[in-house]
Amino acid sequence: MEQRIDTCVLPNGMVLLGEPMPGVESVAFNFILPAGVARMPAGACGASNVLSDWIFRGAGPRDSRQLGDALDGLGLHRATSIGSAHVTIGAALESSNLAQALGLYTDVILHPHLRDEKFELARQLMIEELQAVEDEPRQKVMLELRKRFYPDPLGRSNMGEMDDLEGLSAERTREIAGKHLNPRETIFTVAGKYDFDAVRGQLESAFGPNEGRPLSLPEAGSRGPKYTHIRNEGAQVHIGLMTNTARFTDAGYYDARMALSVLSGGMSARLFTEVREKRGLCYAVGAKYNSLKEAAGIACYAGTTPEKAQETVDVIIGEFNRLAQGISVEEMDRARIGLKSGVILHSESSSSRAGAIGSDYYMLGRVRPLDEIKQRIEETSVESVLAFLESNPFEDFTVVTIGPKEVRVG
Amino acid sequence: MEQRIDTCVLPNGMVLLGEPMPGVESVAFNFILPAGVARMPAGACGASNVLSDWIFRGAGPRDSRQLGDALDGLGLHRATSIGSAHVTIGAALESSNLAQALGLYTDVILHPHLRDEKFELARQLMIEELQAVEDEPRQKVMLELRKRFYPDPLGRSNMGEMDDLEGLSAERTREIAGKHLNPRETIFTVAGKYDFDAVRGQLESAFGPNEGRPLSLPEAGSRGPKYTHIRNEGAQVHIGLMTNTARFTDAGYYDARMALSVLSGGMSARLFTEVREKRGLCYAVGAKYNSLKEAAGIACYAGTTPEKAQETVDVIIGEFNRLAQGISVEEMDRARIGLKSGVILHSESSSSRAGAIGSDYYMLGRVRPLDEIKQRIEETSVESVLAFLESNPFEDFTVVTIGPKEVRVG
Repeated sequence: MEQRIDTCVLPNGMVLLGEPMPGVESVAFNFILPAGVARMPAGACGASNVLSDWIFRGAGPRDSRQLGDALDGLGLHRATSIGSAHVTIGAALESSNLAQALGLYTDVILHPHLRDEKFELARQLMIEELQAVEDEPRQKVMLELRKRFYPDPLGRSNMGEMDDLEGLSAERTREIAGKHLNPRETIFTVAGKYDFDAVRGQLESAFGPNEGRPLSLPEAGSRGPKYTHIRNEGAQVHIGLMTNTARFTDAGYYDARMALSVLSGGMSARLFTEVREKRGLCYAVGAKYNSLKEAAGIACYAGTTPEKAQETVDVIIGEFNRLAQGISVEEMDRARIGLKSGVILHSESSSSRAGAIGSDYYMLGRVRPLDEIKQRIEETSVESVLAFLESNPFEDFTVVTIGPKEVRVG
Repeated sequence: MEQRIDTCVLPNGMVLLGEPMPGVESVAFNFILPAGVARMPAGACGASNVLSDWIFRGAGPRDSRQLGDALDGLGLHRATSIGSAHVTIGAALESSNLAQALGLYTDVILHPHLRDEKFELARQLMIEELQAVEDEPRQKVMLELRKRFYPDPLGRSNMGEMDDLEGLSAERTREIAGKHLNPRETIFTVAGKYDFDAVRGQLESAFGPNEGRPLSLPEAGSRGPKYTHIRNEGAQVHIGLMTNTARFTDAGYYDARMALSVLSGGMSARLFTEVREKRGLCYAVGAKYNSLKEAAGIACYAGTTPEKAQETVDVIIGEFNRLAQGISVEEMDRARIGLKSGVILHSESSSSRAGAIGSDYYMLGRVRPLDEIKQRIEETSVESVLAFLESNPFEDFTVVTIGPKEVRVG
């Protein structure tokens, strides 16, 4: 497969990246803004969320209603995501409307109205969204887990904290916007059908004159407690476990991904067969890789009955530990094809590619060609994964449970 | 856009459909099996789910473990979905492995082992999955809503019923498999990169000799109560509302979709602006179209606080009613581009297309070209939608709430 990456760094530091995809009519773009939850000042956890809503409530020449109408009038499928380092606002659409869409997003980022009365609405909605998580223990357990696993403030909840949201003012959030809607550290990505010269011209003239000040990265503090139980009277015990592993930027990254794939890459992977199939301990069990720039982990979720919760935790931790004792060539082959197949399937979606080239660039300062990813997966072996696990064992778990019954850990 | 649909009906009635997608390396396929929840005999609600798991626990020459290994060894991204009429088992993968994948799925459908000891495991997992829904009120409210809205058994829960799951035996489920894993009424679809002659040859020699008996469709009985409150002590009131509208096969289908799009097609749509933006009643509100062959509805979900629940219901129903009083040309334009843009974005994914051509064929007996869909959307107007609403008003809502507080309806 031929693959081209269009790249341009504006004089003010803003990065523009594009990946043309022949044969598609759609285009997807993201503005990756340095306004993630870990970058918010102390006491303002949730400002990222409020801000990502507030900026769409009127910008440039349009009030809130007009802006919503204009965005929908382009047939945009909008997506906003709140991460540790960034707030990403983006959309997928038919390519002929790209220039108009970029014009509206430029207003949203550079000229949002940020009016007081709209602030209150944005804040209230975020408070309600956070309250709703109380009814979603499966989601809540993973949010609580990340908070405790990552050194503070890296693992802050991407939904904010109730006390902070309640104390947040429009003035404070406007200050945060002034600092963090910052072209200097913004990455723009586009994938699908587009004309890079046109995109560059449009964004350069809009964002170029806007200098922005350098932002300091958050200083990472200490990690939270190793085990936390949050009692509720639900039907299930929701279990989250997380252990340290190689970051996206580390040499051991591909070995870590292969190890995870052997554990949880499919129906034949170990967690699934040992926890679910052989022992019938729970319906839902799976582990995912998660990497920030500063630290990375493998996060495992399982939901089970109170009676089976202890055995479920024991078996999961046992499987993580057992991995270092040996992996078969067949397991490696399946893990390898599973990972490679995922690379191919994701490469065909403009939204996926607009996301992937942005995270590659933020993490590595470059975009990995798909052939490089496939080759690096090919190069892993039983020996390389076992050597990785010897120096980076899956141990020292952070565990959170929500439900009517606690477990013992370690 | 050029678009070709490969079609073949085997002598035993099994339908094969394909849509080639130039420029992709992936392929997605579905076997759409006449084993949906509404087709299960009385007292066996949940048999579809158990069966869809059980058939993968050993088939043809492979035991359960070997089959799981073989599927993962092809890098399949598997997807199973349980619907009213069908159980769909399918996957997306790199196209070079298609023939092997189809070979494994042929075994799963025609030669599953269906051993007793594996049955118990499959059944237990489905029971636990159903128990887990007790902790997911947002999902539960919509399942309970469908049950009451559609004439029984059409709206049966696609997760089964606890009593039925507990009473289900291996023998009974094996009988059901014999009847419902039935090539005669199976639709096979493939989209992406594939060779139709090769696919047809392979499936014809595997499925062709298998005749199958004609299946009768379920007889639709009565609808459930108009309002049901399920009390829990959660933080929110979860509200589900559903009202009758044009089926996929009805002349009014595109007008119904446009009406829904005006109500809930984007940030500028009425439900969002009236319920969320102007009144701040709840964070999550949205309505979706749902069509069976026999009946169709628009299902609306909202999650809010106990204090705001009554007003939320009143405003939502008010917006549904108000639609017939007038729609602006601008609203129609936005709804139209929103729907068309969705058509384009979904047309680029092999999994989406493998799903769409199957549901088109089941509903209409043919696949709608994308240009036809776009043209039919173009042809709608304020007048056509209002005329549709006059003869098909959004009224007579079925409502279910879950939470600490009831509401009054109507």
